[in-house]
Amino acid sequence: MTGERRRGAHVLDAVLDVIAERGLEAATMRTVAAAAGVSLAQVQYYFRSKDELVASAFRHVSERFDEKLATVDLSGRPREVLRDALQLWLPLDDERARDARVWLAFSAASVTSPALAAIAAATDAELRIAFARLLDAAIADGDLAEVTDTETEAALLLAVLDGLVIQGLTAPAEQRAPFLRQSLDAHLGRLFA
Amino acid sequence: MTGERRRGAHVLDAVLDVIAERGLEAATMRTVAAAAGVSLAQVQYYFRSKDELVASAFRHVSERFDEKLATVDLSGRPREVLRDALQLWLPLDDERARDARVWLAFSAASVTSPALAAIAAATDAELRIAFARLLDAAIADGDLAEVTDTETEAALLLAVLDGLVIQGLTAPAEQRAPFLRQSLDAHLGRLFA
Repeated sequence: MTGERRRGAHVLDAVLDVIAERGLEAATMRTVAAAAGVSLAQVQYYFRSKDELVASAFRHVSERFDEKLATVDLSGRPREVLRDALQLWLPLDDERARDARVWLAFSAASVTSPALAAIAAATDAELRIAFARLLDAAIADGDLAEVTDTETEAALLLAVLDGLVIQGLTAPAEQRAPFLRQSLDAHLGRLFA
Repeated sequence: MTGERRRGAHVLDAVLDVIAERGLEAATMRTVAAAAGVSLAQVQYYFRSKDELVASAFRHVSERFDEKLATVDLSGRPREVLRDALQLWLPLDDERARDARVWLAFSAASVTSPALAAIAAATDAELRIAFARLLDAAIADGDLAEVTDTETEAALLLAVLDGLVIQGLTAPAEQRAPFLRQSLDAHLGRLFA
């Protein structure tokens, strides 16, 4: 890793913190520079616009999710593999809550930005494909007898995940984890019934 | 309706348009005044802060949803009643898409505003109760044999709804309606299996 990449990662980490703690509106080049302890010019070197800053933050969060996904033990039963994979995205601890806040800010911003919407649509499509593959594996194992349309089920899994993130982020902190686990298990329980 | 209330409704409508079309960041007192064709002082008379402006926009959208919900024919089969009710919230036409955009902007803003988070949590709780009642009616009709925990199912319904809104808003316009209907029907189909 070069010194420049390290500095970039440090600035990106500051972007994530500012968005998660103070919201997208607070995430200006100036507040990010202050949070990262670098000059405004250095932030502008990495991000030419606010959209680019938000897109980079989301990409960073997505990449970390992909990295964690690669560590999931695929040798287990497909239902358990799927559960482990989905839990990586739910705000069950502080780090995932920060990432979830960044995702939500990004999703909201993508509604009025065609560039961000394209990234959101592509990421959603990738996740649906990844979920559909896990569902196909479950069908091959004879574990999902009644599911035929894995694409639609994958879209529903993504919807459940996104919707639970939103309810989870506004739920009182002490109710969050049990609520998220119980809801996800109820959906998977019926899917794998 | 007094003249003042009409003027307030006109300003509120401008708030919704600005948030839906240009995002939350663009929704300043000044842009709202310009969009509504009123003075800055008039906008400030209705909203003392940005949070109040966003909260009012969301309340307006919620009230319109409640009004539409009151028009749903409750004499049908609970499954159909539930489907009709849920479709009121999906972005299946321009008006609902505008409302959905306002909801998403509000949800993202509520993550970093305790005042907005309280409104979001209360609204989510109300919706979960309303959905749970519809599910109870379906159970009473013998239409939901395998569901026992209607609270959890109601939370899942809300999650599916919120998640589909997000995927729907970023999907290409021509795919949106068929995607939303097919996904919702798949969830209800399994729920009522």
